[in-house]
Amino acid sequence: MRVERASLDAMEGFAFSLFEKLRKESFDGVGITREAYAASETAAHDLIAHTARQEGLQVEQDAVKNLIVALPGKEAEKPFVACGSHLDSVPQGGNFDGAAGVVAALTAVVHLKRAGVAPPRTVKVFIFRAEESAWFGKSWLGSNAMFGLLTQNDLSAPRSTNGQTLGDAMMGTGVDLDDIRAGKRLLDPAHFAAFLELHIEQGPTMVARDLPVAIVTAIYGNVRHMRIVCRGHSEHAGGVPRSMRRDAAFAVAHLIVRLDAAWKEFEGGGDDLVVTCGVMGTNPSDHAISRIPGEAFLSLEIRAERNETLERFYHRFETECRAIEAERDVSFEVDRRITNPPAPMDVRWVRHLSAICKSLKLPHELLPSGAGHDAAVFVHAGVPTAMVFIRNEHGSHNPREAMQMADFMAATKVLKEALCNPLL
Amino acid sequence: MRVERASLDAMEGFAFSLFEKLRKESFDGVGITREAYAASETAAHDLIAHTARQEGLQVEQDAVKNLIVALPGKEAEKPFVACGSHLDSVPQGGNFDGAAGVVAALTAVVHLKRAGVAPPRTVKVFIFRAEESAWFGKSWLGSNAMFGLLTQNDLSAPRSTNGQTLGDAMMGTGVDLDDIRAGKRLLDPAHFAAFLELHIEQGPTMVARDLPVAIVTAIYGNVRHMRIVCRGHSEHAGGVPRSMRRDAAFAVAHLIVRLDAAWKEFEGGGDDLVVTCGVMGTNPSDHAISRIPGEAFLSLEIRAERNETLERFYHRFETECRAIEAERDVSFEVDRRITNPPAPMDVRWVRHLSAICKSLKLPHELLPSGAGHDAAVFVHAGVPTAMVFIRNEHGSHNPREAMQMADFMAATKVLKEALCNPLL
Repeated sequence: MRVERASLDAMEGFAFSLFEKLRKESFDGVGITREAYAASETAAHDLIAHTARQEGLQVEQDAVKNLIVALPGKEAEKPFVACGSHLDSVPQGGNFDGAAGVVAALTAVVHLKRAGVAPPRTVKVFIFRAEESAWFGKSWLGSNAMFGLLTQNDLSAPRSTNGQTLGDAMMGTGVDLDDIRAGKRLLDPAHFAAFLELHIEQGPTMVARDLPVAIVTAIYGNVRHMRIVCRGHSEHAGGVPRSMRRDAAFAVAHLIVRLDAAWKEFEGGGDDLVVTCGVMGTNPSDHAISRIPGEAFLSLEIRAERNETLERFYHRFETECRAIEAERDVSFEVDRRITNPPAPMDVRWVRHLSAICKSLKLPHELLPSGAGHDAAVFVHAGVPTAMVFIRNEHGSHNPREAMQMADFMAATKVLKEALCNPLL
Repeated sequence: MRVERASLDAMEGFAFSLFEKLRKESFDGVGITREAYAASETAAHDLIAHTARQEGLQVEQDAVKNLIVALPGKEAEKPFVACGSHLDSVPQGGNFDGAAGVVAALTAVVHLKRAGVAPPRTVKVFIFRAEESAWFGKSWLGSNAMFGLLTQNDLSAPRSTNGQTLGDAMMGTGVDLDDIRAGKRLLDPAHFAAFLELHIEQGPTMVARDLPVAIVTAIYGNVRHMRIVCRGHSEHAGGVPRSMRRDAAFAVAHLIVRLDAAWKEFEGGGDDLVVTCGVMGTNPSDHAISRIPGEAFLSLEIRAERNETLERFYHRFETECRAIEAERDVSFEVDRRITNPPAPMDVRWVRHLSAICKSLKLPHELLPSGAGHDAAVFVHAGVPTAMVFIRNEHGSHNPREAMQMADFMAATKVLKEALCNPLL
């Protein structure tokens, strides 16, 4: 045990060099861009495949071009232990969101392979395609495709940058769409003993609490509306007294402030949630400084650890809309409601990973994940799933992501211990 | 008197036909577009000039291409009584904003001319260029130019549609810019005995109170910021708890709601004002459904009958900005403050016009004008100035403006009486 730990520390150079190669390959002048189902993502997959082959690991692509690196275990015929993450990024993002989990998993198995250690079960590292919703609107496309969960609607979604459909983009990387359209499952969830994902934290909590690693309790579910339109009445700003106005911008502002008040109230009651209106505004085609806005819009995203919280807050949102409609003579119109249920991690695995941290003398806490991850797809598929967070400064989805290699190596040790001593 | 009133009623067809010609000439497929210092405005001026000449009235253009139609009075050497309005419209506007005042004034003088009546003083109908701020950002360009009040900055302002500068647009209609640059006054305010402007009401008050005409007490002043930028911090929407967020959209929403609350409070205290944020939103170049907005913006326009109210509300706006900055760790940054002082109408003329309405048995009230008008330029030049509002449905600056000819003729009667019996 002592020998193995010492030698995993020696792997830091291997991991650092992989991060640097990825960064160099995908620097866009401002940040990191690895575009889902496109050349820059494929180049990153190729780098990992090439490295794994050099180390003598088994390398394959599945039918939707996820990459799978395998290290055979002692009981190769039994369900395998899976780990991994994704390599795509948002446009002008950072180098670690996704890649940290891939490099950690590869570092752990290369370490075991070099040391000649066969783990109890075969370990498979999954490098998923297209995790980020920035490209085709929906998240976790590679892991969903693996479980046969993409729809024709998903395949028709246009790429945000150039309108190319997901289907065309997948075909461009060599994917045959017929199986996807048929909803064919590439792997049976029963073949997985577990799925373990390492990921950088995307918020400031671990930095604030001085924690190198954390064990995730659940991935927040979310309810989203891309566009809620408020319609009032556009009029000359000088002509209409306060009581007769139907100002859509004021109505939207009041809605946001009431959502903020409700959020505060929910938190006070012990609920765990975040609320964001990432996109809002008056209608650029007819707004003017001197005109009462007749139309304004906002997006809404509610994320919460529990379904009950999501639904209760959503109900409150609807109630506030109706109240403002009545008070201000406006109307709110919502587009399709998008719902992703929360994904609770496997309680036994959370305890197990926590125990491993303790044995490694790593300060850690249990935290929910506000951000979504491929791990959620495994939870919903019924696979025992767990996640380890790595401390990271400045959040993610921006070029300033800042993960320290010491924290990365600490998390990788936790993963390696888990692969060598999986819960079965 | 009875004969004249009967025959003014007979002028309804003359006025109606002018409105129809204007409408036909400047219909843009959706509404009315008469573009300031451009062909469509010039065409409308030509129609009025042609009609006035046919009636034997004196017609001239001043050096900045305002049109002036004159009916000589008994004391031609003494200060004249001026009336009129503008012919430009906003893009896709209505047919009556501006044109009603021009047609009313022309109808009144044609009526007097046809009847062979010489008014006590010469009557001059001013048809101003470029009243609407929609084209070059600033209002009342023609009347300001007449008083030598345009600056080089004004001349450099780009047209909102195609970027052509005001200076180039004026030159395109035959204006020599040298006199404007020199700040030359085309007319001495002392030559005006009064300026009377008829205009449609641009709000719903007169319809609500069933008033065909109203006498204006004052034109609201205003304070404007075209763009107030709120800067917070852009982060992953799932990662950051409520207490650590620096959400620029939430901050802007809170600012608007506090301005609304302050407005209500000011009204409760007897202040007369309107507050509008006509343009607001998150930054389209980096906003996303799943990202806490790091930047949001809004415009602000405060209009009030009294300077003191404007300044007190502006101070409150600044106070609320500072409070939200402290509470939410954001910052507000304002562009140049634009200030137009309120323009109170001449108290004696307000009483006189009110007495004329009474003598004509016209239901009327005294109302402030939230919208700005060329009349404000005359107030600031020291000319005794008054305005008559005509009832109009659906506000203005839109194709649905709906003025009834009966109301128009009632207001025109008030004007004709005023021209025949001016306060001197």
